[in-house]
Amino acid sequence: MPSEFTLDRHVEFSETDMAGIVHFSHFFRYMEETEHAFVHSLGFSLHRQERGAMSGFARVHAECDYRAPLRYHDTVAVRLRVERKGTRSLSYRFLFRKIADRGRACAPVEVAVGRMTVVHVTRGAEEDAFEAAELPPELARRLEPAPSEPESE
Amino acid sequence: MPSEFTLDRHVEFSETDMAGIVHFSHFFRYMEETEHAFVHSLGFSLHRQERGAMSGFARVHAECDYRAPLRYHDTVAVRLRVERKGTRSLSYRFLFRKIADRGRACAPVEVAVGRMTVVHVTRGAEEDAFEAAELPPELARRLEPAPSEPESE
Amino acid sequence: MPSEFTLDRHVEFSETDMAGIVHFSHFFRYMEETEHAFVHSLGFSLHRQERGAMSGFARVHAECDYRAPLRYHDTVAVRLRVERKGTRSLSYRFLFRKIADRGRACAPVEVAVGRMTVVHVTRGAEEDAFEAAELPPELARRLEPAPSEPESE
Amino acid sequence: MPSEFTLDRHVEFSETDMAGIVHFSHFFRYMEETEHAFVHSLGFSLHRQERGAMSGFARVHAECDYRAPLRYHDTVAVRLRVERKGTRSLSYRFLFRKIADRGRACAPVEVAVGRMTVVHVTRGAEEDAFEAAELPPELARRLEPAPSEPESE
Repeated sequence: MPSEFTLDRHVEFSETDMAGIVHFSHFFRYMEETEHAFVHSLGFSLHRQERGAMSGFARVHAECDYRAPLRYHDTVAVRLRVERKGTRSLSYRFLFRKIADRGRACAPVEVAVGRMTVVHVTRGAEEDAFEAAELPPELARRLEPAPSEPESE
Repeated sequence: MPSEFTLDRHVEFSETDMAGIVHFSHFFRYMEETEHAFVHSLGFSLHRQERGAMSGFARVHAECDYRAPLRYHDTVAVRLRVERKGTRSLSYRFLFRKIADRGRACAPVEVAVGRMTVVHVTRGAEEDAFEAAELPPELARRLEPAPSEPESE
Repeated sequence: MPSEFTLDRHVEFSETDMAGIVHFSHFFRYMEETEHAFVHSLGFSLHRQERGAMSGFARVHAECDYRAPLRYHDTVAVRLRVERKGTRSLSYRFLFRKIADRGRACAPVEVAVGRMTVVHVTRGAEEDAFEAAELPPELARRLEPAPSEPESE
Repeated sequence: MPSEFTLDRHVEFSETDMAGIVHFSHFFRYMEETEHAFVHSLGFSLHRQERGAMSGFARVHAECDYRAPLRYHDTVAVRLRVERKGTRSLSYRFLFRKIADRGRACAPVEVAVGRMTVVHVTRGAEEDAFEAAELPPELARRLEPAPSEPESE
């Protein structure tokens, strides 16, 4: 079964800009929050740190296509799908659907589509730079990519 | 002469995350800051608002490829180029180069490449939604796209 | 019964800084999110906007005392109390308690105490500046301040 | 001579909210940016990190009184003064003055006053928590507090 996860996110006042809509940069925070909730739901953590050593997932690509605005007090359902599972990397696709409009449930409206590619990286306590590393096997085992998903659903 | 503009940006402490590097979402804020400084340098404003009516530039696409991290107290030179000038839209390309490393000038290091497409939109005082509109002619006249720029420079 | 409300908030990765803890500025966003959830729970909206006219609550004072750090994947319970109800203003007190430590429920730890004073303001469609205005009576009626609350509980 | 420093800061689009003004939380980021620029101007760094060990300045108190709004494309001059120098802590006062209004220089308008108290902290590589520590003597020597500064100037 392809790996999939949905996070419902309430739009906060501080996320709007003077155009009255959610600032475009916050969609990238929404993607990351969904990714972290997804990985936590599998019993893993996306970031481990101990005595200077660290392992985590570095972003190498992120993109978003915006189709309709989000506003204060809307709710957006962010659906993540694992599109590709590499040896050291993962590619996600995100579908953003508005499911409540200023506090009231509404028929879903597609507001954006995003993509993100992350690489598993580690860094020793004595090192300054991160190095790419194989995906943790217990995590990789749990992920089933769905590469052929059609663009619109 | 192709339209080009560079903004030197100091990395702030609040822009780092617990991995010790600039959070990837801030690169999109850096792109927008550079775009606004560019348009201001031409004598225009990117956002006009009057008695409920509004005109501005809505983002329809944004992306970033990350090649090296930025850290606290680095300086990054963000170079914008106009890649495409449509009737109602503009596409920008951004090259991020680190030019100071934790407070000390350094040989430029390419840290990221970004792209953004924006559409000129307007909204009447009585309306709820934005509509795409032709680029302001005085602005369009000043912009010279450079579509054939090679990827690495 | 004094007006009180608690919001449980998950700490996101993007809210940490390179010291490995939540950046202090986010506590102010947490306060505002709790305030908005509180007012929504009473059936009101904190921000109304129509054809250029606008009414909302402007912040005139905000403060926070920090006692212990919050970290990625912690959960913080933010308890709001209405401390003072003026004719045009409201003063809130916020108690921040960590209730989960990096994903695991824990005995509550007091991490911060905040205060915020907001003023009800309105702005006509033809005006540029906001003006203080009486609290909406239907909202004021629902609020019962608890001025004498002791500092530590 | 009392220690004082001023940073001129351009207001970015992403810092506005749907009320059309700078979101109140950003004033705290402005304070911190000014503090860091001040300490850098003295030849010090506010945050040092090496192989897991870390030293920095933890915020224990922050507050702001808001008197007038800031808008997109305004410039604000943030003046920092050292109000108190303790053995391990520093208290700053910040005066925010708008000096350009939507891109045009204007007579200074006081928009806010802030305060912040920070404590020098260190953390060993093997430790989990920060501990308060004496101010670095080379830094402390350079700081001259001005405790008696009158509230309005």
